[in-house]
Amino acid sequence: MSEPKSQNIRWHGANITREEREQLLGQRGCVVWFTGYSGSGKSTVSRRVEQLLLERGVTAYGLDGDNLRFGLNKDLGFSAEDRKENIRRVGCVAQLFMDSGCVALTAFISPYRSDRQAARELVGEGRFVEVFVDTPLEVCEARDPKGLYKKARAGEIGQFTGISAPYEPPESPEIQLKTDGRSVDECAAEVVAWLAEQGFLSA
Amino acid sequence: MSEPKSQNIRWHGANITREEREQLLGQRGCVVWFTGYSGSGKSTVSRRVEQLLLERGVTAYGLDGDNLRFGLNKDLGFSAEDRKENIRRVGCVAQLFMDSGCVALTAFISPYRSDRQAARELVGEGRFVEVFVDTPLEVCEARDPKGLYKKARAGEIGQFTGISAPYEPPESPEIQLKTDGRSVDECAAEVVAWLAEQGFLSA
Repeated sequence: MSEPKSQNIRWHGANITREEREQLLGQRGCVVWFTGYSGSGKSTVSRRVEQLLLERGVTAYGLDGDNLRFGLNKDLGFSAEDRKENIRRVGCVAQLFMDSGCVALTAFISPYRSDRQAARELVGEGRFVEVFVDTPLEVCEARDPKGLYKKARAGEIGQFTGISAPYEPPESPEIQLKTDGRSVDECAAEVVAWLAEQGFLSA
Repeated sequence: MSEPKSQNIRWHGANITREEREQLLGQRGCVVWFTGYSGSGKSTVSRRVEQLLLERGVTAYGLDGDNLRFGLNKDLGFSAEDRKENIRRVGCVAQLFMDSGCVALTAFISPYRSDRQAARELVGEGRFVEVFVDTPLEVCEARDPKGLYKKARAGEIGQFTGISAPYEPPESPEIQLKTDGRSVDECAAEVVAWLAEQGFLSA
């Protein structure tokens, strides 16, 4: 479906480069990929980070189950294959947001190293910020706001990460975020400070 | 994969609303959906619009075959079903960019009214700007920079829009853009002026 640009001299159009775009926007695109157990605080922290960035005038956008499962990924179920495709599409969309100069924040359990590695390669080294939301399983299970762990323990939900399906923790995440005993604001500020230090919030 | 937000008081996080986001960014998100024959100038005009917007400090991003066919949609071929799914995903991704406050520009032939209508409904009335790039087929065929029309006429490419497959022109597009005899800059300026008039470039 990619069609040719006309070679008629008046109809020649060049792509704006990522560098030009970032200069104009005054920020650098990246993908901040939150991974961790259900209930670890991924969505909560990522939303707070998004808000802090927007308040600083930095364009940021969060992708999570809420805005993907019912749109782009509504054709996908919860089979192993569909979960993998779900994460593949999240990576592709996050890459597009990064390419647009935006700070893209993703909040999915994404339990498998190979899926996260694929996203890292797609986005490109130096633009992919893996945030391991390192909340102990016991704490997540104690929080259990929607009773999912309880259902998983009762066998009512199968293939539940941490209970009946594996979670492969990142080996060298850019940020290892401890949430237990800390506030959302503290955790979010740690991520924002890291992004600022690395030069993503200016160009 | 959507997981619960903790109800622990320290772990409650609210979504930023689209209105708050747009206030902070100083612009309103929309989808500018270019449709027209191959060679009509969709990509060329949309890229120029993107550049003009970025130069004004407006966050804008173009989606086209170049950045979708080899990423998100790389699993799709050119069957009728896959073309439909291609356009569905384009609509979903454009909707996410709109939701982020960005001016999303899409440049796909998108020959079927029903597919464009589905994108319009997803994005939402008032946020969907259909631009009919109204370049006569003869002009597109005369431009034919990559020789695709020649190949289509020779029967080497099947199901080619305008030659061996239908194009259903928009009945009431927001913008009907005549390109023949005009420069890229004139055409792009017309689109930018329309967006400014409608209040998308400020908030």
